[in-house]
Parts: sequence; C-alpha cells; structure tokens
Amino acid sequence: MITGKNYVGSQLLASGTKTYKTIDPQLNIENPWTFTEASAEEIEQAVHLAHDAFKIYKDFPAERKAAFLNAIADEILALGDALLEIYCTESGFLRGRAESERGRTIFQLRSFANMLLEGSWVEATIDTAIPDRAPLPKEDLRKMLVPLGPVVVFGSSNFPFAFSTAGGDTASALAAGCPVIVKSHSMHIGTGEMVASAIISAAKKHNMPEGVFSNLIGGGVTLGAALVKHPLVKAVGFTGSINGGRALFDLAAQRPEPIPVFAEMGSINPVVILPEAIEKNSKKWAAAYAGSITLGTGQFCTNPGLLLGMKGKNLDQFLKELAEQIEKITPSCMLHPSIKADFNNGREKIRSQNGVTTIAEYKEETAPNFAPQILLSVEGKTFLENKILSHEVFGPFSIIVQCENIDELTTIINKLDGQLTGTILAEPDEISKYNSVINALQNRVGRLIFNGVPTGVEVCASMLHGGPYPSSSDSRFTAVGIHAVKRWVRPFSYQNWPDELLPEALQNKNPLNINRTVNDIITNKPI
Amino acid sequence: MITGKNYVGSQLLASGTKTYKTIDPQLNIENPWTFTEASAEEIEQAVHLAHDAFKIYKDFPAERKAAFLNAIADEILALGDALLEIYCTESGFLRGRAESERGRTIFQLRSFANMLLEGSWVEATIDTAIPDRAPLPKEDLRKMLVPLGPVVVFGSSNFPFAFSTAGGDTASALAAGCPVIVKSHSMHIGTGEMVASAIISAAKKHNMPEGVFSNLIGGGVTLGAALVKHPLVKAVGFTGSINGGRALFDLAAQRPEPIPVFAEMGSINPVVILPEAIEKNSKKWAAAYAGSITLGTGQFCTNPGLLLGMKGKNLDQFLKELAEQIEKITPSCMLHPSIKADFNNGREKIRSQNGVTTIAEYKEETAPNFAPQILLSVEGKTFLENKILSHEVFGPFSIIVQCENIDELTTIINKLDGQLTGTILAEPDEISKYNSVINALQNRVGRLIFNGVPTGVEVCASMLHGGPYPSSSDSRFTAVGIHAVKRWVRPFSYQNWPDELLPEALQNKNPLNINRTVNDIITNKPI
Repeated sequence: MITGKNYVGSQLLASGTKTYKTIDPQLNIENPWTFTEASAEEIEQAVHLAHDAFKIYKDFPAERKAAFLNAIADEILALGDALLEIYCTESGFLRGRAESERGRTIFQLRSFANMLLEGSWVEATIDTAIPDRAPLPKEDLRKMLVPLGPVVVFGSSNFPFAFSTAGGDTASALAAGCPVIVKSHSMHIGTGEMVASAIISAAKKHNMPEGVFSNLIGGGVTLGAALVKHPLVKAVGFTGSINGGRALFDLAAQRPEPIPVFAEMGSINPVVILPEAIEKNSKKWAAAYAGSITLGTGQFCTNPGLLLGMKGKNLDQFLKELAEQIEKITPSCMLHPSIKADFNNGREKIRSQNGVTTIAEYKEETAPNFAPQILLSVEGKTFLENKILSHEVFGPFSIIVQCENIDELTTIINKLDGQLTGTILAEPDEISKYNSVINALQNRVGRLIFNGVPTGVEVCASMLHGGPYPSSSDSRFTAVGIHAVKRWVRPFSYQNWPDELLPEALQNKNPLNINRTVNDIITNKPI
Repeated sequence: MITGKNYVGSQLLASGTKTYKTIDPQLNIENPWTFTEASAEEIEQAVHLAHDAFKIYKDFPAERKAAFLNAIADEILALGDALLEIYCTESGFLRGRAESERGRTIFQLRSFANMLLEGSWVEATIDTAIPDRAPLPKEDLRKMLVPLGPVVVFGSSNFPFAFSTAGGDTASALAAGCPVIVKSHSMHIGTGEMVASAIISAAKKHNMPEGVFSNLIGGGVTLGAALVKHPLVKAVGFTGSINGGRALFDLAAQRPEPIPVFAEMGSINPVVILPEAIEKNSKKWAAAYAGSITLGTGQFCTNPGLLLGMKGKNLDQFLKELAEQIEKITPSCMLHPSIKADFNNGREKIRSQNGVTTIAEYKEETAPNFAPQILLSVEGKTFLENKILSHEVFGPFSIIVQCENIDELTTIINKLDGQLTGTILAEPDEISKYNSVINALQNRVGRLIFNGVPTGVEVCASMLHGGPYPSSSDSRFTAVGIHAVKRWVRPFSYQNWPDELLPEALQNKNPLNINRTVNDIITNKPI
C-alpha cells in the first residue's frame, strides 16, 4: 500500500534522488519501505498548484469545505487496521494509543466541519450607513475573516496523527479556506503517506481543486526552507523543537514579504505542589504524577518536567511516595533511536550538574529504544544559578526543585521561559494564600491547571494550547480547538459594497443565519 | 507650557545631552522650544516602571481602566486652544483639521472605554466539566483574553493626535491592560509633550500605577531600537514608512524572545475606474478624486496614488475633467521640509521614467513647504515593466495607468504589493462583469470600497485598517476600531480553577453580565 512517493496534488511523484527509510523503534530495525525526497520541481509544482487551488477553494461555500473535512475523517477510518499498524510500526506506540489518537484526529476534523456548518466563526461585523450624519455621512462597512493563502504544515514526531498530516494544523487551515502543503515528518513517512492518501481520496470524491493538498518528503532543512521561503506560501504551522521552530520563524521573518509562523515548541510545564496538598493527598498526587510523567513515554509537549515544592518533611514524604510509584512503572518505547539518544544525553547532562541528585530511577535493563523514567532533585538556589537545569528533556523525565520558601519559589517561576502550562496542587483553602505564585505562573504560561495533571489537552473552544515564547512563537494564538483557525485568516472590510455582491455572511438577509455583530449588537436577525 | 523634557512615568526628566527642535512648516522657521533626548538611564527607568506597572494595571477592573481612558479624553479637551495651536504650529495643518483630528482622538479613547464597560471583548469561552465522560472525564476549561505586557508606540508624522501619543495604538494598548511607552515623533515633540501631560494628569487623578505611561524623546533609530530590543517590552505599534516599520519588525524578530510588531506602513491604494462609471459620472468622480488626492496635502496612508482605467475616449474625457479639477485646487502645506523634499524627489523620480507623461499639475509658485498637486500617466505595459512606477509618493500625487484591456488591468493588480485599500468605481450593472478585477483586488488589499474614495477611515468595529504586507506587517490585525485591541492580548485558559478565584469574566454567576460562549452557545446567562 505504501508507494514511497510524494503527493504533488493528487499525483504520486518521485523524481528526486535521495531516499529515506523509517525505523521500527520497538524492534529497532529499519522498515521495508523506501521513500524518495521531493525534487525541486515537485516542490515548485506543489506550491503553484496550492496557489491556483486557493483562488477556487477559498470561495467554496462552507458546506463544501465541511463535507471535505468530514470525508477526510471517513477516509482515514476506512483505512482501518492497516493505518493503525503502520502507525505502531513507525512510532513504537501501542495499539490503544493509535486508536485514541486516531479518534482525536477524527474529532478535530469533524469539529472544524461543524464550525463551518454553524458559520459564525467568520466574525461578521456590520456597521450600517448613516447618510445624514454631520459633518460627514457614515458609509456602510462590513467585515469578516478571509483566508491568507497556501499554508505549509510541519507535523510533530510525537503525534503522527493528531499533530501531523491531517492533524489540527491541516484541519484548521483547510477549514479557513487555505490549501495545505505538508512536509511529512521523517520519522513516520509511511503513516504520513497513508493519511495523505485519505485526504487525496476525499478531495477527489468532493471535486476539490487539484493542489488543495500536497504531501512532500524531505530530510533536514532543505525541503522545509524551500517551502517557507517560497513567495506563494502565506503561513506556516509547526509542532516540534525550539531549534526547529525558531529556524523556520527566522526564515519567514527574513522574507521580502514576512509571513506568520505559528510554532508550538518546547515546554517543561512547571507544577507547584503546596504544603497542605501534600499533607492531605500525598499518595493521590504521587500516583497521578508518576502516571503523567511516564504517559506516552513522557513524549508530550505538556509533560510535567519541573516540580516545585517547599523543603520539609511533607515534601520528603511526597518524594518517597512519588519515587515508589515511578520505579514500579514498566518503561515503554520511544519514537526513534535518535529521540532515545537525545533523552539519554539530556538526562545525563542535567544529572551531571552540581547539586543534582537522583530521587528515583527505573534501574532494570530495557530494550534499546525503551526509556527508563527518572526523577532528579535540586535545591532552589542551585536551580536559579544554572540555566541548564531548566532545559527540556523530552521523555519520562522530571526534576523537583526544593525551595527554601515561597519567595524563592516565586522568583524561580518569574525567571522561567514561557510555558504551555502551569499547574498548582493545593487544598481549596490554601491556594488563596499564594497569590504571588499564581500571578507569576499566569504571566509565564498559556494554561493554568488546578489540582490536575498538564498532560491531556482537551479539544474544545476554551482550550489554549500555546503560550509565551518559546512555548509558542506567538502567544496570541492556539494550536488546539476551533480558534486554531484564527492563525490562517485575516479580517477584510467591504465599504459601501452592493448587497448582492457581498459574501453571504455579510448580506442583509443573513442567509446563513449566523451570529453577527450589527451596529455593536450580537444578533442573527436580518438587517 | 512646554518643558522639552521626557515623561518617565510622571517625572519630567532631561538628563540626556542631545537636543532637538521642531519646525513650523507654514512659516518655514524653527519653533522656539528645545527638546532633550531620553538618556539611556531614562529609557531603562521607563521600561522598568512599565514592567512594574503592568503587574498592577492588568488586574484593574474594567471600570477603572475605562475611567482612565475617559479622563485622558477630558484632559486633552481641557488643554483647549493651546493644544490646537501647538498642533498647527508643528504640523502645518489648519485649525479645522486640528479640531477634527482631536475629535477623532477623543472618540477613539471613549470607544475603547465603552468597549471595556460593555466587557464582552475578552471573548470569554467556557466549556464546563463532564465528570462522567468515558473513557476520560472532561475537565472544566475557561478561556479569556489577557494583556501581553508593556507596549512601545511609534506615532505617525501625519496624525499628530489620532495616530500618535494618545492615538489608536496607545488607547487600544491601555484598554487591553498594557502600559505604554511612546517614542515621541520628532516632527511634533511639543504636541506630543502636551498630550502626554494630559495622559499623566489623568493617570494621577485616577491613581494609576507609576509608569503606566511614559513619553520619550529621541531622534533616528537609537531610542526606537533600544525600546524594541528591551527584554521587558512585549509588543510594538508603529505607523509610518515601510523602511522604518520593517527595521523595527526585523529588530523584534531577531530578539532572543521575538515580540509582535504591528506596523501600518505604505500603500498606494489602487482605484479602478470602469468604463460605464466614467461615461455616466465623469464629472462627479473627477471632483471627488481631485479632492481625495489633495485632502490633507495628500498626506494620508489611504491617499489614492494609483488610478487604473481602460484606454479610450471615455478615459480621455475623465482625465480632462480630473485635470481641470486638480489644477484649480490651491496647494496646501506639508508636515515638514523633509517631507516636502521627499515629495519633490519621489515625484520627479517617477516623472523621469520612460513613458511617463504629466496630465495635470498645479504650476504657480507656492510657499516653500507647500506641495503642488500632480497627476501623471503611463501605459499599462510600461507600468508592468517598471517597479519604480508603483513606489509610494507621500503627498498630493497620483498616477493613472491606461490599460489596453481588462486582462492587463487584472495582471497589474495581481502584481501589486499589499495595500490598505482598493476601490472600484462602477455602475451597479457593470461591476458583475468584472469578477476577475474584484477577486484580484480582494487578494491584495485590506478594505474594498465601492463608488467612494479611500480617504476617510471610519472608526468603528467593522473597519479594517491594515492589509497584506507591506501595507501592514501582519494582515491578521487592524489599527483602527475596537478590534485593534487584539494586537495586545493573548488568550489564556484556566483548567478546573476554583470559581471564586477566576476573573469575574469567567465566573459561573457572570457578574459582569457579558456575552460569553458557554458550551458553544453565545449567552449572557449565568452557569
């Protein structure tokens, strides 16, 4: 079923010379398929097709775009077990994870389809004319969101479905009215090709314009740089490392015409454990955090990599229980030998810093790409003095910082880089005493969690998945939930435009029956 | 009344060494006041004060921020004639313009105050918990917009009130909850100081935190670069030239922590004149366009610098009438001798290109800083071959491109840089025949106007003032209307947060009685 070729629009092409293989990390062997990189001509062709497709696709009625998104979901499901099998083979994840991530991906596609069918997402805003206003008449003005143009999507290593080929970036861009060119992630090119085949199949069945979607193969930065620098590309979505995201951000900012890049990058997701919470619920939180640190082999952007607590007997007791829980979990497989190697290096780099001790570590031998979870510890003063200690270690890793007092803890939070999430574990009566901690966290994160774990990113309108730099490249947007569409659209105003020539969303009769802001009042009534 | 000093918070300081003067362009003489540049210490102090003020100001209730904005409006009005006089002295504009621009500025401040009092602008979005959902419970999630932090504002030369010290950028940033540091525009530093004194006076009366506003003086790029590169500055607003805006954009993008820059920059605002519109309303459009080209001595970012029509008798007739109208208007004064010099140079550079002819020009002698309006002409083919012909000439300048046919006209539009506005003059029955023109324009502009002039930017929610690069640095935002606040805010999510600790906008009872999206339904009801 795998051809190893690029989808340049609906054509399967492979005129490039360089080839790639993927790895089965569970078995630690190469997979059988050979993938061919996109040639310069294929890249050019994909971008031009997307540019031409945009002119047509952007004006399709919402129902057509929604049907396309739902059809992508259907086609993905129709691939059945074969898709789940290649996902597991290329990621090292187990069947249950494959199924749940596929479910999330389907849900995302259908969420954006529903958003289109409901229609109010275009934020139609109308101010009607006042011809007799003095000293000057007021003209009729009507504004709505319109798509930017072709979007390039760089999928993540750790979510081969939900944040990759047909993941949130692709679904939101297609919903916005933007054609998409995916740079297939090199660790799961086969999975990417199968998902791409589902998108292409849906596009054919719904008569989408050729080039509404392409899926290109390439390693290193050559393909990515060519796409981001191309004048006909108008925006970029990325999920991955700080280095990778920043490199693309810089390329986009240096273009003659800079374009927006939404990069969701690194985060160590600080968790503050307050004294009474430990005293009352030490066992509960120890179990929850052992689970959160090791979930998906710790390969989540919301993995709790940094615990912050106040020194003392309670914290000692909590760490003892957390250590017990952590040590008894059976390690699982990482995505790729290179990710395992990075995990080992990152862990040892931090462990080798002055003042760092090991609280818990799974010590038995594991298979080559399996990652033994670890919990390190350091004093607050030492943490403040050594920036290396706040580097992200991607995997089942966490470090507890034992602070002298709440001032030291607050200072540590204030000095952290931007984070996707911040968590507070506290008793209800306790939390109001720690306003300084909450304020500090609020300023450094995109999402604040009370008495929970940061892993688990609900797909809903009120989710913010993003945050201050470097957790994302622009804290004003989210990568998850229907508002993710806002990354790919711009407001557009019509002045004094004839009603019958306006888009339906702005016409007097409100034929779409959407919520609009008319003369500062939200209403779905006609004008 | 003018001290010549910097407002570092509420302190008037002048420890710098370099000094500046402003010009009275009508009289072509230096004004009497001496202004002292902000020293490095003053810059540092202003930024640190803003950083500290942010921690307090961001959490003030909407009523307090609204009262502050309204008080700024009141204090500006209380400056009375003295303020209008210095405005005229430093800008060369006449009294009527001073009054109308002050009115616009007051209206903007009060619009943002009203937005705060109404309260729904925070886009509160709530998804309530579903504890018994399988396989995993759904957590309670609540999202709203929160401010980014201190904002640096670079005012424009051509709107000393409405796009400067207390203009739209400052008003929207203060409304968002962000302290503001203004880099005073070097052409109207005295006007800037007086307006700054009104803001400081309002801040004192309403017990705003020290540093919520500062006004700094400096020439060239030294002050601007220091502010944009400062780690405690979180966003930048700019109105001015492409070179200036791009330089700041580049500095911001190159920071270790990149920050958003909204720069509203150049535009030549193409106007398409269709044949029947000329045939039926030649005189009307000639009079309207002569007025629009020369309004404010052509010193508007929405000045119609490019007319596009189809060759023929009708166009010849229109140009004859437009020429008559243009030549009979008495020239007016430009903002500064350097702007007059740039106008002369830009005009002659374009006039000296191959194939360019002069259709109309005011030929009598004028005072030194007065600008004689001009209309040039060129063939479509020549325009397409020479990029220089689409450069902006800031002032009462326009060039008509006479196209062979509609295809050539469409090609020209497709090759234009991004623009703030695009205009179509057409008879109602005529416009539907020109879909390709409309589509091409829609793709290149932020606002599309039917049968009107692009000058005149209404302050209302449905206005889009911005557009594809380089008319703005990020087409996803507007500089005018209440949505301008979105440049300075980010969404923020609370997960499972105790109701009594949530901001009021997100509490169950909805104490602010605002519109919120609760479980995907817009409502102002409590939960």
